[in-house]
Amino acid sequence: MATTVDDTRRHGNLHRHADSESGTCVELGAARPLKLDCGVELGPFRMAYRTYGDLNRDRSNAILVCHALTGDQHPADPPHTSRRGWWELMIGSGKPLDTDRYFIICANVLGGCLGSEGPREINPETGEPWGLDFPVITISDMVRAQAMLLDHLGIDQLFCVIGGSMGAMQVLQFASSYPERTFAAVPIAGAARHSAQNIAFHEVGRQAIMADPDWCGGDYLRQDRVPRRGLAVARMAAHVTYLSEAALHRKFGRRLQDRPSVTYGFDADFQVESYLRHQGSTFVDRFDANSYLYITRAMDYFDLAAEHDGVLARAFADTPVRFCVISFTSDWLFPTSESRAVVHALNAVAADVSFVEIESDKGHDAFLLDEPEFFAVLRGFLRGCAEHRGLPS
Amino acid sequence: MATTVDDTRRHGNLHRHADSESGTCVELGAARPLKLDCGVELGPFRMAYRTYGDLNRDRSNAILVCHALTGDQHPADPPHTSRRGWWELMIGSGKPLDTDRYFIICANVLGGCLGSEGPREINPETGEPWGLDFPVITISDMVRAQAMLLDHLGIDQLFCVIGGSMGAMQVLQFASSYPERTFAAVPIAGAARHSAQNIAFHEVGRQAIMADPDWCGGDYLRQDRVPRRGLAVARMAAHVTYLSEAALHRKFGRRLQDRPSVTYGFDADFQVESYLRHQGSTFVDRFDANSYLYITRAMDYFDLAAEHDGVLARAFADTPVRFCVISFTSDWLFPTSESRAVVHALNAVAADVSFVEIESDKGHDAFLLDEPEFFAVLRGFLRGCAEHRGLPS
Repeated sequence: MATTVDDTRRHGNLHRHADSESGTCVELGAARPLKLDCGVELGPFRMAYRTYGDLNRDRSNAILVCHALTGDQHPADPPHTSRRGWWELMIGSGKPLDTDRYFIICANVLGGCLGSEGPREINPETGEPWGLDFPVITISDMVRAQAMLLDHLGIDQLFCVIGGSMGAMQVLQFASSYPERTFAAVPIAGAARHSAQNIAFHEVGRQAIMADPDWCGGDYLRQDRVPRRGLAVARMAAHVTYLSEAALHRKFGRRLQDRPSVTYGFDADFQVESYLRHQGSTFVDRFDANSYLYITRAMDYFDLAAEHDGVLARAFADTPVRFCVISFTSDWLFPTSESRAVVHALNAVAADVSFVEIESDKGHDAFLLDEPEFFAVLRGFLRGCAEHRGLPS
Repeated sequence: MATTVDDTRRHGNLHRHADSESGTCVELGAARPLKLDCGVELGPFRMAYRTYGDLNRDRSNAILVCHALTGDQHPADPPHTSRRGWWELMIGSGKPLDTDRYFIICANVLGGCLGSEGPREINPETGEPWGLDFPVITISDMVRAQAMLLDHLGIDQLFCVIGGSMGAMQVLQFASSYPERTFAAVPIAGAARHSAQNIAFHEVGRQAIMADPDWCGGDYLRQDRVPRRGLAVARMAAHVTYLSEAALHRKFGRRLQDRPSVTYGFDADFQVESYLRHQGSTFVDRFDANSYLYITRAMDYFDLAAEHDGVLARAFADTPVRFCVISFTSDWLFPTSESRAVVHALNAVAADVSFVEIESDKGHDAFLLDEPEFFAVLRGFLRGCAEHRGLPS
């Protein structure tokens, strides 16, 4: 049903890792395709993933890590790779997601651009990149693909599913769709639906991409062009929302870069401008513009209550899952009120739920950073769950 | 020294008002040019302005209204014009800025695109539009130009200078630069310096404009092109920051526009997307892209304390001005903490200052909207000042 595939189907104009570093890629859904929410049946489709640690004999120690909008399947790459993993602080020997105890799985989301099926992969029916012919996917579709990957790996039940931001959306969807396959769930800095403000910010980014003539109506790969400027602007706009005003003030304030005074021009006089421009230009080297459209759209469409007559609690009726919901005080993109709404829904069905708001001035990105209280909460929650699950401590 | 000029020097590709509706345009600084902060001497230069009400015999009832980034000199146009004024709720017979009692002046800022000297006007030395040859201006330059306009009008002292957002920056600068010319000052939803976060949002907008090939390195007017897409994206990004999350939620939430369900595509499924796109596309018809660069830059450069060895209080030493500082609870672009910093500086020099934070969920744009408590505060403050100034009530 699933086969490990080589990399010949990838269309490359992004910086690439060697195969040995990019983890494994499997083809799923050949026999039984993935039914997408939009009605399309997708299969076979590729899923690129990475694992850390060892699966125990009971297959009971697996943790699925769900990545955010621009994340990838390399949260904790070993030191010999050139890039640092986006969750190296979290995953490793002796770290909260302890690779000595747990088997960590992280897959590139469906619609992504780092090996899993998405708009920059080759459409097998045409031999050309999918581009905008790729079907629009949802968070629910991403989660179904991950469940198929777990089938492939022979894992019936996850010990834990965990993720921040869009990762938290996947966590909530996974726990709702597959309660029997979820022992514990940790949605961090997330929400059960995307707010109007967040849809608005995403729309700004999409319009920036689509305004770039090099986007070519989505067909830039075949025309050997890259909408660099539009994608960079989209990234800059988004990046501001990931930080708090306090963090920007502490990091940059109104400090100028290597000049005694302002230049009365449109160069990057301020450090914060230079930083943003750097964020934009480096992003273009590692991310695909169409993937950005698809993944932001999936987030916009996410509204877990809507699948349950508008009542979020029904998404978790009789859930056996142990939840730990985490938010950060200075996160204005996914504020604590959104996490609180999830907790209220879980309380309404008498679910087993802990809720911690971490004091931090680092904004939404706090979930990626060194936050001792956050790590302590996670360690404690996982230790308790491991005891209940009968995992050796 | 100053002459009223006709409109032949304007370069037109924006929608235009008839002369009779666009107020008056004077040429200033012919004999004594305006010394800009960047070192350039500008003159003669044009100032377009509008007045409402009558100047009294003592010339003691003048109120200068300072507009925001994308505002203009038409805050309260009479009903026969097609456009509505941006502060119609505020200015008029019986309104807080009562045209039966006060003489209201509003000028298009230097660097603007509605008649005052700016990048889209004709550089008299070349006979071509200034474009990026226009000198980069500051809030202080804008205020000096306004003071020259007051000289032209024969007004020694303003009864009041008032404005929101960038208008508030001008108010603070005016009161600091010309305390003897300011009886009262009302900075609304403003700050004494632009924050790192706000510089970052402006930089996103500028990058969006400059990324548009139709910007032509700033030379689009001469090449008969308009960077519509870039300017629209800049406006969309900015517009999100003018509203609160609560206001966006109340106005749009996750509601779809005229369709039973999402379309699984990149059309504007959500009302908030359609609204934003409309904001972007209509803005392009009324605003010049280079002006947007210049005015955002002026705001970024604004740091009133920096002119006084970093001590904001020194900007107001021994000030005789009566201040009323106003902020709105849900304004996250110019939060109350910024107004509070101004109030602390004024307290430190024992200035006459009232400070009111208005409860509102409408975000930064609240200063443009119907906020009864805001209007009541303003009426009360102006009534008190009018008594002290000896104006008839």
